[in-house]
Amino acid sequence: MFTLIIGNKNYSPWSLRPWLLLKMLDEPFKEQQIDLYLSDSKARILAANPAGKVPVLVDDKLRIWDSLAISEYLAECFPAAGLWPTDSALRAIARSIVAEVHSGFAALRENLPMDITLRQVDYESSPAVESDIARVIALWEEQRERHVADGEFLFGGFTIADACFAPICTCFQTYNVRLPERSQAYVRHILSLPAMQEWYSAAAAESKRPF
Amino acid sequence: MFTLIIGNKNYSPWSLRPWLLLKMLDEPFKEQQIDLYLSDSKARILAANPAGKVPVLVDDKLRIWDSLAISEYLAECFPAAGLWPTDSALRAIARSIVAEVHSGFAALRENLPMDITLRQVDYESSPAVESDIARVIALWEEQRERHVADGEFLFGGFTIADACFAPICTCFQTYNVRLPERSQAYVRHILSLPAMQEWYSAAAAESKRPF
Repeated sequence: MFTLIIGNKNYSPWSLRPWLLLKMLDEPFKEQQIDLYLSDSKARILAANPAGKVPVLVDDKLRIWDSLAISEYLAECFPAAGLWPTDSALRAIARSIVAEVHSGFAALRENLPMDITLRQVDYESSPAVESDIARVIALWEEQRERHVADGEFLFGGFTIADACFAPICTCFQTYNVRLPERSQAYVRHILSLPAMQEWYSAAAAESKRPF
Repeated sequence: MFTLIIGNKNYSPWSLRPWLLLKMLDEPFKEQQIDLYLSDSKARILAANPAGKVPVLVDDKLRIWDSLAISEYLAECFPAAGLWPTDSALRAIARSIVAEVHSGFAALRENLPMDITLRQVDYESSPAVESDIARVIALWEEQRERHVADGEFLFGGFTIADACFAPICTCFQTYNVRLPERSQAYVRHILSLPAMQEWYSAAAAESKRPF
């Protein structure tokens, strides 16, 4: 059985992504949580992962760090689950989007950090933040328009691209980001998933960081 | 035939990665270059790629942006080339490393930026920079020790992980980063590749940015 080592559910977008994938796969796994805001957290993370980061997927002796590498591993382990679109061109687009989110959107990350239980918070607008938000919306609108007949996720059925955006959906809720109707419907759909509800409940029950 | 849209060879680590992959595959491709330091470069990049970034791989009507998505696409197009290790566990490790580099090492990126033709430049040391350098070395030493009998690349034969680190090899040369012998030999090996020599010559022939 897999073990997934994650950080605080309230604050850890990188942890939410592989956790959601495993839940959507309906794959049982052990969850090991490290509170990232305790004084000894750095040592505890390093003990779990030399890269000094969570999440980590443990599969027997193998430790896979980084949410994207974990996603690719799960896609390979469960080829029938369609974690990437089956069409080669769509898969390339999905990977482009996921890779763009993986290395980019610094302004969004910094100014609208994930904080699951917060609501009705204003964010400080700036050209960089608005540009990031506009880019997310453009990506969503394009894919939803293209795949509206195939299902309610970005590419119709659930893929790694949806897991990738799930934390951003929570941030858009927290910070009241105004969205066009299609994007708003997409956020509603992601946040209504039973797995996301489970994550929200657990985040609400966690002790909050001391600052 | 593929077209690869790239930025300035002297300054664009993200462009070097897929370019090197195509060269190592011995796959002919058209190269289209955008000078990132001209006043209209932003418009020209956006015309090539709505994400506003290079590189972009064009395969007929398909445009794949982001070096990592391009890498995965090429690995799928040429399964016999071994762009990822064939062993599933090694592939997961290689992807973890590549994903870590893709989203991390901000201090290295900022303080030791790629500048191919520069030599003997001092960099401003800081705990963040030294931590990034130490992490790169740790990753190299571990893989080279493990795969020393299989070849001179990180996992023995050439993989996407080597393309991923190629820009960092050039930076370590430019900024005189002191390395343990095994890592130094790895940098020498990467920089001596005919494809890298070709990139260096082209970078030297480019006009330099105006600041």
